[in-house]
Amino acid sequence: VVYDGTQLALADAPRPALQGDQQLLQIRLAGICNTDLEITRGYKNFTGILGHEFVAEVVAGAPQWVGQRVVGEINVACGECESCLRGMPTHCLYRATVGIKQHAGAFAEYLALTARNLHIVPPAIPDEAAVFVEPLAAALQILEVAQIAPHDRVILIGAGKLGLLCAQVLRLTGADVQVITRRAAPAKLLQQWGIPTTSLEAVSAKAADVVVDCTGVADGFAEALRLVRPRGTIVLKSTYVGQPSADLTRVVIDEIRVVGSRCGSFAAALRLLASGQVAVTPLIQAQYPLEAALTAFRQAEQPGMLKVLLSV
Amino acid sequence: VVYDGTQLALADAPRPALQGDQQLLQIRLAGICNTDLEITRGYKNFTGILGHEFVAEVVAGAPQWVGQRVVGEINVACGECESCLRGMPTHCLYRATVGIKQHAGAFAEYLALTARNLHIVPPAIPDEAAVFVEPLAAALQILEVAQIAPHDRVILIGAGKLGLLCAQVLRLTGADVQVITRRAAPAKLLQQWGIPTTSLEAVSAKAADVVVDCTGVADGFAEALRLVRPRGTIVLKSTYVGQPSADLTRVVIDEIRVVGSRCGSFAAALRLLASGQVAVTPLIQAQYPLEAALTAFRQAEQPGMLKVLLSV
Repeated sequence: VVYDGTQLALADAPRPALQGDQQLLQIRLAGICNTDLEITRGYKNFTGILGHEFVAEVVAGAPQWVGQRVVGEINVACGECESCLRGMPTHCLYRATVGIKQHAGAFAEYLALTARNLHIVPPAIPDEAAVFVEPLAAALQILEVAQIAPHDRVILIGAGKLGLLCAQVLRLTGADVQVITRRAAPAKLLQQWGIPTTSLEAVSAKAADVVVDCTGVADGFAEALRLVRPRGTIVLKSTYVGQPSADLTRVVIDEIRVVGSRCGSFAAALRLLASGQVAVTPLIQAQYPLEAALTAFRQAEQPGMLKVLLSV
Repeated sequence: VVYDGTQLALADAPRPALQGDQQLLQIRLAGICNTDLEITRGYKNFTGILGHEFVAEVVAGAPQWVGQRVVGEINVACGECESCLRGMPTHCLYRATVGIKQHAGAFAEYLALTARNLHIVPPAIPDEAAVFVEPLAAALQILEVAQIAPHDRVILIGAGKLGLLCAQVLRLTGADVQVITRRAAPAKLLQQWGIPTTSLEAVSAKAADVVVDCTGVADGFAEALRLVRPRGTIVLKSTYVGQPSADLTRVVIDEIRVVGSRCGSFAAALRLLASGQVAVTPLIQAQYPLEAALTAFRQAEQPGMLKVLLSV
């Protein structure tokens, strides 16, 4: 499934040759993420095979890997730059990113990926759950960048694919979590999980200790600013379309902390899936064979659509 | 010195009556701050006596206060709201602010202020230094909202009145502090203090662990974003004119922490002045009697002007 800079298409690609410590992965299941959709609108100027959420089997490479069922971290780090030496490989200054930047993606039969990025999936986790490890790890990154305490009141704005994972992760802290959503399908899931929903209108200004913005739109940040208390924290969990104008004076006067978060711990995501503390399969709305990827993308683009998977 | 919503003027005012635990302060020396200048351009819609940086003598009130030389915190808190009960009186939801919001200011012969806000000035600190306690406390607030470590590289953008105090405060951490300024006068002071200056052009992108923005303009935030490393911190130290557009996607991708800071610890500022660890009197560029306040304001409005004082 290739984006050539103007359109998405199916194409034949050679089986990738292995370089360095790369292993050859045969993709089993892959998920369509909003970033994939944005790339087909020009985000990151990426061209090539899309896809970065996947579970696969190692079919060629080092003996200790072949036959393993794996998920793979998406940032391929140089290991030598200042960020890598600080222990922040996801921030490698020269990183490639699977299906996003200078690296082939997972919407394909095969993917070559460095062994350093692979994590073995325990047998207890089915493919349909393992394919969520990457976005669940991203949700968990909220807890790496912000300290959320059991007595906190947390408001999450936006209950899309990522928001529903964030809601469950936030709930693990014991905090008083409420999710603002206008859509019926995520509201119903949240209700099943016992996570309260609310509306923008129902929340008082400056009422939240922590606001997590999963909207990806400028209005989301403005609302987050309205809801957070003095010295509270706003966690930005999704990239923004365009460059929003931001009331930074409010940030100064109320001494608000704004912190971005991106990729997170695969190991932690695997632990939470293995122990059943986070539900991911209810997010699956459709599954298509790889050959029907264009149809799958059209469906994934529908407003309010949750996870659309591609099976290989 | 009264701002009536359209212009600044000298006016006769009655000696204020004392309410509750207010003490009557006779102002000795007061400083003109950028916030005062902004108020005369409409900021905060304040009308009344301006001024919030001062040193004074208590001339009427409780016996234990009368005769004391004092400085005064500017946020008059209710003591009962959620912010006050959290131990954040500077964030009181119903606060009045001396010379800024619903409270008379210090550019006057007398000021009535609650005893809770007063700090006795030790004899070792002359009036000309004590008048800087409020802005020095604001500079110290950087160290309350951000952890700045000895191994950090810190870039401060903007070396105005407040920036020069921030530079000295940042230097106390042992960090590698560099100040970006285009003006000769602050550069000379920084040189005297042994604090290196640099230029925007000379600093590489993503080179700083911490960037402190003292510019108060939207360009300052954009530059701070350019200079800060992945997972670095941007401290916003001055309010912004207008509402800047901000590259929040960069904040997400590089997991940057943006934190605002406002009013700080008067006790800490007094300790640093008493021990001589921060130099403030070199920032004084002019001193006028209160009767010449309009001339003093005109001078304070000149670009690059440092501190202009009013003596009573």
